[in-house]
Amino acid sequence: MTDKLVECVPNISEGRNLAVVAECVNAVASVDGVKVLHFTSDYDHNRSVITFAGSPEGVTEAAVRLCKKASELIDLTKHSGEHPRMGAVDVCPFIAVKNVSADEIVEIAKTAGRRIYEEAGIPVYLYEKASTASHRQNLADVRRGQFEGLPEKTKQPEWQPDFGNGYHETAGITIVGAREFLIAFNIELDTDDVEIAKKIAKTIRFSSGGYPCVKALGLMLHETNTAQVSINFTDYKTTSLYTVVDKVRGEAEKYGTTVKCTELIGLSPMKALIDCAEHYLKIKDFDYNNQVFENHLL
Amino acid sequence: MTDKLVECVPNISEGRNLAVVAECVNAVASVDGVKVLHFTSDYDHNRSVITFAGSPEGVTEAAVRLCKKASELIDLTKHSGEHPRMGAVDVCPFIAVKNVSADEIVEIAKTAGRRIYEEAGIPVYLYEKASTASHRQNLADVRRGQFEGLPEKTKQPEWQPDFGNGYHETAGITIVGAREFLIAFNIELDTDDVEIAKKIAKTIRFSSGGYPCVKALGLMLHETNTAQVSINFTDYKTTSLYTVVDKVRGEAEKYGTTVKCTELIGLSPMKALIDCAEHYLKIKDFDYNNQVFENHLL
Repeated sequence: MTDKLVECVPNISEGRNLAVVAECVNAVASVDGVKVLHFTSDYDHNRSVITFAGSPEGVTEAAVRLCKKASELIDLTKHSGEHPRMGAVDVCPFIAVKNVSADEIVEIAKTAGRRIYEEAGIPVYLYEKASTASHRQNLADVRRGQFEGLPEKTKQPEWQPDFGNGYHETAGITIVGAREFLIAFNIELDTDDVEIAKKIAKTIRFSSGGYPCVKALGLMLHETNTAQVSINFTDYKTTSLYTVVDKVRGEAEKYGTTVKCTELIGLSPMKALIDCAEHYLKIKDFDYNNQVFENHLL
Repeated sequence: MTDKLVECVPNISEGRNLAVVAECVNAVASVDGVKVLHFTSDYDHNRSVITFAGSPEGVTEAAVRLCKKASELIDLTKHSGEHPRMGAVDVCPFIAVKNVSADEIVEIAKTAGRRIYEEAGIPVYLYEKASTASHRQNLADVRRGQFEGLPEKTKQPEWQPDFGNGYHETAGITIVGAREFLIAFNIELDTDDVEIAKKIAKTIRFSSGGYPCVKALGLMLHETNTAQVSINFTDYKTTSLYTVVDKVRGEAEKYGTTVKCTELIGLSPMKALIDCAEHYLKIKDFDYNNQVFENHLL
């Protein structure tokens, strides 16, 4: 009941040869107590995403085994795909699910990074919350130049790997980090005016002065002729779903429209949703860890 | 991930001798894979409530072991307390938590009832969803007459036990059933007029023509001088928290007041709360089992 629980969502640079993907998934699943929750492959991206969870020790071991296996089976000198990539295991983020502090998840990522170099021989960059310098926080910056750029990149003093030197000849560099659960959430407006969705997106997204840890775009859903605000919550504990939904409701009203419905894409941690129940029901003195039955079973 | 999960909440007729309570809890905990989530004892009631969960087979075995142990340690001929009781293990409800259908939970209760008689020698009445006749659905009716009334009650043809004959001389009869998770939930009004709370309670409770599976009373919280609607949801899947909260908000407005806050007493299943998030956020096509991360871990 007080077990620590960590999620890990590595992206591997193989999305076409599903036998290779299966071997990588099996490497993860071979660790006792680690559960593979989901995996999905994209042909165009030539990339697969594996989602698994377990104890800090279990997920760390599984990440190391995955990097070993992927470096045996994936050769980036022969890899092409739509999605930018730098390593056979390209990114490997760790996410705290239960009873794991912000400091601990960073330590877990660093331990995994060190072991990936020491045991699998793949140099590692640390990113996001595990990053060791501000210019290494953003994944896009770390990955800039991709696999092909590594000979040049790893010569620059500011881009020495955090663990190891240079890069692995065929498996590149793995980018390991700690981040929050990412929630993809869309809000449909009762209008076909995409400009309203774009204005609202601008109001709420952090990069335009809105809420921290919120990314947003205004889009047109052509099939239903509906304007949509498409949102990524990169840390729902910093900015909650209900904060943004309430704001969008208010903004929509200003523009003479309303929120028609919302949509959750993929998974959400239960806490992100239960936080909304607590807010809308106005539950006082709510003790999430103790009062939600399932928290006693996880 | 697709494991069946059942909760069991037996009430035992001992709330003063905590060594006896501990032995009973240990009998439950002795079953592999069964987790004791909570137990609480009440001195005035001379009664304890044990909450545990596990597989159908695990919780059934634990219930049988508990009845054996309680019948060794608890003598109802010497028991007194505020709370009505009929058995050493007085009631033993089973609740489906995950991947268990309404029919299955009834079968689990019946199997447990049969084994409690066959292996522990305690006759059993089945109640609520497991009841075998309409006059046996309501716990209060089944328990009427209490332990002391059993010599008379068990002579009546309509009150023969479902398993066994007569009653155990010192352990009485155990009342075994299947029910939904009970949620205790209070709504505080922004008024000191308890009559408003009483009128609203009457509007929402089933016994006065309100919502099915809702029990409600209007009370005065003297410490804070606040009128409160105190509610039991006996099946949140039939009437949800948000349905009642929204109704109470509307009724409060009619009486010129508002809902100040709400309060959850004890535990709620996560689904009861996430249903509220889905409602208030207006999430379309929400797939509870697959889109809530933790459902993949339970």
